[in-house]
Amino acid sequence: MSMKVSFIGLGNMGTPIAFNLLKHGVELYVYNRTQEKTTPLVKAGAKLLKTPRDAFKEASILFSMVANDHALSAITEGAEGILEEARPGCIHVSLSTVAPATTKKLALKHQEKGTHFLASPVFGRPDAAAQQALWVCVAGDDDAKKQVEPLLQMIGKKTYDFGSNPEVANAVKLAGNFMILSIIEMLSEVFTFAEKSGVKSEKLHAFLTETLFPSPVFLNYGKLILEQKFIPAGFKMSLGLKDLDLFLRTAETLQTPSPIGGVLHTRLLASLAKGREEDDWSAISLISREDAGL
Amino acid sequence: MSMKVSFIGLGNMGTPIAFNLLKHGVELYVYNRTQEKTTPLVKAGAKLLKTPRDAFKEASILFSMVANDHALSAITEGAEGILEEARPGCIHVSLSTVAPATTKKLALKHQEKGTHFLASPVFGRPDAAAQQALWVCVAGDDDAKKQVEPLLQMIGKKTYDFGSNPEVANAVKLAGNFMILSIIEMLSEVFTFAEKSGVKSEKLHAFLTETLFPSPVFLNYGKLILEQKFIPAGFKMSLGLKDLDLFLRTAETLQTPSPIGGVLHTRLLASLAKGREEDDWSAISLISREDAGL
Amino acid sequence: MSMKVSFIGLGNMGTPIAFNLLKHGVELYVYNRTQEKTTPLVKAGAKLLKTPRDAFKEASILFSMVANDHALSAITEGAEGILEEARPGCIHVSLSTVAPATTKKLALKHQEKGTHFLASPVFGRPDAAAQQALWVCVAGDDDAKKQVEPLLQMIGKKTYDFGSNPEVANAVKLAGNFMILSIIEMLSEVFTFAEKSGVKSEKLHAFLTETLFPSPVFLNYGKLILEQKFIPAGFKMSLGLKDLDLFLRTAETLQTPSPIGGVLHTRLLASLAKGREEDDWSAISLISREDAGL
Amino acid sequence: MSMKVSFIGLGNMGTPIAFNLLKHGVELYVYNRTQEKTTPLVKAGAKLLKTPRDAFKEASILFSMVANDHALSAITEGAEGILEEARPGCIHVSLSTVAPATTKKLALKHQEKGTHFLASPVFGRPDAAAQQALWVCVAGDDDAKKQVEPLLQMIGKKTYDFGSNPEVANAVKLAGNFMILSIIEMLSEVFTFAEKSGVKSEKLHAFLTETLFPSPVFLNYGKLILEQKFIPAGFKMSLGLKDLDLFLRTAETLQTPSPIGGVLHTRLLASLAKGREEDDWSAISLISREDAGL
Repeated sequence: MSMKVSFIGLGNMGTPIAFNLLKHGVELYVYNRTQEKTTPLVKAGAKLLKTPRDAFKEASILFSMVANDHALSAITEGAEGILEEARPGCIHVSLSTVAPATTKKLALKHQEKGTHFLASPVFGRPDAAAQQALWVCVAGDDDAKKQVEPLLQMIGKKTYDFGSNPEVANAVKLAGNFMILSIIEMLSEVFTFAEKSGVKSEKLHAFLTETLFPSPVFLNYGKLILEQKFIPAGFKMSLGLKDLDLFLRTAETLQTPSPIGGVLHTRLLASLAKGREEDDWSAISLISREDAGL
Repeated sequence: MSMKVSFIGLGNMGTPIAFNLLKHGVELYVYNRTQEKTTPLVKAGAKLLKTPRDAFKEASILFSMVANDHALSAITEGAEGILEEARPGCIHVSLSTVAPATTKKLALKHQEKGTHFLASPVFGRPDAAAQQALWVCVAGDDDAKKQVEPLLQMIGKKTYDFGSNPEVANAVKLAGNFMILSIIEMLSEVFTFAEKSGVKSEKLHAFLTETLFPSPVFLNYGKLILEQKFIPAGFKMSLGLKDLDLFLRTAETLQTPSPIGGVLHTRLLASLAKGREEDDWSAISLISREDAGL
Repeated sequence: MSMKVSFIGLGNMGTPIAFNLLKHGVELYVYNRTQEKTTPLVKAGAKLLKTPRDAFKEASILFSMVANDHALSAITEGAEGILEEARPGCIHVSLSTVAPATTKKLALKHQEKGTHFLASPVFGRPDAAAQQALWVCVAGDDDAKKQVEPLLQMIGKKTYDFGSNPEVANAVKLAGNFMILSIIEMLSEVFTFAEKSGVKSEKLHAFLTETLFPSPVFLNYGKLILEQKFIPAGFKMSLGLKDLDLFLRTAETLQTPSPIGGVLHTRLLASLAKGREEDDWSAISLISREDAGL
Repeated sequence: MSMKVSFIGLGNMGTPIAFNLLKHGVELYVYNRTQEKTTPLVKAGAKLLKTPRDAFKEASILFSMVANDHALSAITEGAEGILEEARPGCIHVSLSTVAPATTKKLALKHQEKGTHFLASPVFGRPDAAAQQALWVCVAGDDDAKKQVEPLLQMIGKKTYDFGSNPEVANAVKLAGNFMILSIIEMLSEVFTFAEKSGVKSEKLHAFLTETLFPSPVFLNYGKLILEQKFIPAGFKMSLGLKDLDLFLRTAETLQTPSPIGGVLHTRLLASLAKGREEDDWSAISLISREDAGL
C-alpha cells in the first residue's frame, strides 16, 4: 500500500524533490501559490490541492518547501492554513531555510493541535535534488522522524538527525550556508592574491582540491569563481543575502558576534548595489577583483 | 650510485624530511645552527657540515628548511654562506615558508653564480613529514626541477609544479596557510553559533566532514577546536602570526586588500595578548567563545 | 492665548522635554502607557489623556517620544490610536529614533487623514533635554514646520531643517548615532594603543580635545572611557544595539555596505554576551582592553 | 644674541617650519639631500650645510623633518651622519613621523654620545606650518625640552609635553593620524548613507560641524569628501599607507588588535590598486561610494 503525502511549494528545489517522491510510488497531493507550477507534477500523476488547508485532509504527512519565513507562516496559519484540518499525529516536514525562531514559534502551534513539526532543511542545488543526492538534516519528535525516514531516503543520499528540538536543524542549515559563503569570499581573496602573484589559477585550484580541500564546495565554487560564470545563478545573490541575514539575526539573538559575517554582509550589499542581484552569489568574488584593480 | 645532498635546518620539519632522504639511500650532509640537533641524523649515518659554506662543497644539491626570511638570507649570503662555494649548475631547494620577495632577491643572487634556486614549500605537519606524506609545491628552473624530482618524491606524496618563477611557489604556500587560518576562524564562529543554538557539536562536525567538507583541514582543526586541546601545539600561534604577516605584507605590495586577513590579524593579536603564544594557532577559537560569553 | 499640545511618551527624554513646554506656558495634555510616569507633569499642571486617541481631540499638535518603531505604530494605528480623532491640519511631531521606513509608512497614513507627520529626532542626553540644550532635526511639510517652530525652540537650542520628506530626518539621526558609536570604538582602540605605548591617557585626552577634536562627543565619551564609569548608563548598551540595527537595516535596504558598522556590531554583541546590557554603550571600550590583555 | 639651529629635511613641511625659525631671528644652517630645495632658505639668509655631519658642528641644536624611518636612521648613523660630530649636551629635535621603535633605537645611540634626542612630531598641513599654527607634541629629556621650548613656540601655536620617553610622542602622532583616517572613513560611510537616504550632504555637514563635531578634522575632511576634490593632495594616499602601517606594526608589537585599522588598510590598498596614489588620502571615500553603486 502506498503512502500519501501532500507537498506545498514547487519552486526550483521543491519540484525535483516532489518528483522523487512520486517516482518512488508515493501518492502525491500538490499545492503551489502560482498554480501553473503544479502542472508538470499533475501531468505525472499528482493530484491538485486547492488550498494549503486541504493538505492534511488528504494525507497525514505534509512536505513544504517555501521561499521564506513569511511564506511558511502564511501556509500554516489562518483560515486557509494547514493547521485548520490538522489532526493529532499528522506530521509537517518543513524543508525550507528559515530562522530557528520561526520554527520554534510554528512548532508550538502544531503542538497545540497534537501535530508534529519536523524541520528538515536540505543541502544541495536543484541538480542534486533531481539526482536524489541531497544531504538531509532533520530534527523534531523521534517517532515522527521514524515515520518519515523512508520518505527522506527518497529525496537525499543521507539523513542526519540533530535531535528532538526542530529549530536546531535550521541552525545547522544557516551555519552551513554561512560556511559556504565564507569559503566563496576566502577563495575570492586567494585567487585575486594568486593572480597578482603570477600563480596560474587552474593549477592552484587543482592543487587545493586534490590536497587540503577535496570538497565539493571548493571544487564547484572554485570553478565558478575562476570562470566568472555567474549567470544563470545556481543560488541568487538576493537569496544569499536573505540567508546571511537569517544567520546574522539569529546570531544577534544568541549574542554571538561574527566578524566574518560582517565582511560577508558588505560583499553582498556591494554586489547588489552594483546590480548583480540575479547573479550567482559567488559573484561576490568580483568585488575582490575590483578592489585589487583587476 | 647514490645521490649526495646537503641539508640545512633540522627543526621539527627539517629533521623528519632529512631522515626520509637518508632512508632512501641519499648520502646526506647536515648543518644546523644549534649543532646538537644534528646528532640523531649523524648517528643514523649523515655527515656533519661545519658551516653553510660547505654545503655546496660536498654536494651539488642543497635542501634548506629554516625558520624565516632572515635565516634564509643569513645562510645564503656572507663569507660563511652557501653561495661562497656554489658552482654553476648547483641547485638550492628552499623548503622554507618565506616571502615571495625574499625568494626573488635570493634567486637573483644564485643566478649570478649560475646556481639554481628552487622554491619548494611543503604542506603538512611534522607527523605528515615523518610519514612521507607532505604535499610538495615547487617552482623554478625546469631542468633543475627535473633533477630534484626523485628527491622530492622521497619526502612527499605528490609534487605540484607551479612553473619557472620560484617566488610563485611561496605565494601558493602563503595563500594555503591563509586559507587554513580562515577556516579555523570560520569553524570557530560556527561552532560557537551552533553551541548557543543547541546543536551538538560532534554531530555537526561529523555532518560537515562527511558532506560539504570532507577535507583534512576541516577534520583535524574541527576536532582541535571542539576538544580545545591546544597544547602541545602542532603549529604555534607565534608562527601563525609570522605567516599571516608574510601574506598580508605580500598582499600590500601587490595592492590586494584582504578583509578576512584583517579579521584574522585581530584574532592572532588578541590571542598573543592573552598569553597564548605557545598554543596551537587554532586556539584563536577561544576568542570567539569568550566574545560570545562562553 | 496659549498653545495646546498633547504629549505621548514620558520616559527619560520625554519627561524633561514635556516639562520645558509646560514651563513656556504651553497647555499640555499627557499620555504614557505606564500611567504613573505622568504624575510629575500632572502635578505641575498638565492634564491627563486616557488614551492616545484623545491626543488630537484636545489639541491640534501632538509631540511623541516613544521607545521604538513598534511603539510608534502602536500609538498611531488601531481603535485607540491617534489617527482615529485626527482632523485635517493636525500635526504630529515625532521625536523618536525610528527607521526612515517606519516614518514613511506612518506619514502616508497621516496624509490620508489630511494630518501632517513631522519627524523631529533630537540629539542630546536627558540632562541636555532638561537644560533645553538639545539639537533638534526636523523634516516634513513646510507650513507644519513653521507652526511648530516656536515649540521646537522651547525644547532645544537650535533647529535644523532637513526638507520636506520626514524620513530624511530619521536618516540623519541614525547616521549621527552611528558616528558617535564609531568614535567610541575609535577612541577605545586609541586609548588602548596609547596605554600600552606608555602615553598618559589624561594628557592624550586633553591634547586631542584641545586641538583636532574640540567636540562634546570626544570630550564626554573620552572621559567615560578613561574613567571606565559605565553605570549608571547615559545611553544603555541594549538601546545602542537597537539604534545600530536601525542604521544597518536601513543601510541594507539602501544597498550601502558599512564595514565600520560590522565592527561596531561585533563589539555590541560581545558586550551583551558578557552581561553588560545595563552599562553605558561606551563600555564597548572594555572589549578593546580585554583583547589587548589589559 | 641669536640662537643657532641646524635644520635637515626641507620638504613640504620642513620648509615652512624652517622659515618660521628664520623669521624669528634664528641663525639657521640647512641641509637637504636634494640640494636645490635649500635655495629659498639660503636666499633668505640661511647657511648651507654640506652633509648631515656638519649639523652639530655649526649648532648645538638640530631640527630634522625627513620622509620616513629609513631616512632618519640614514642622517643619524654612518660616517656622514649627525652623530659623528655630536657633543654632550647637543639636542636633536626630531619632527618626523616615525615608529616609536625607531626613536627608541636612535635615542639610545644619541645617549651614548651624551646627546639628547627629542621626538617632536607635529599636527597640521603645510599651510598650518606656514602660519605657525601647528600643534606640537614633544617628549624626551626635561632640560633639553626646556631649552628648545622657545624654538617650538616659533613653529606652532601650542606645545604638548608627553613626558621623558621620546618614543611616546611618536605613539601620539601615529594614534592621531589613525584617528583622522578613521574619521575620513566614518564620514565617507555616513555621507554615502545620507545621499542614498535623500539627505542633502551640505546640510548634514553644517549640522554635524555646528553641533556634535565642531572640529577642524570634521570640517576640512568633510568638505573634501563632499566636493570630491582630491588633487592636489594635502596628504597623499601613499603617505597615508606608510603612516597606517607604522600604526599597525606598532600595534602588532604591542599585541593590540585594531579592527578599525583592518578596515582602513583595505580602503587604502583598494585606493592604490585603483591608481589613486597621488590623491589626497580622503579619496578612500570613493570606495564607499563605488561599493554603494554611486
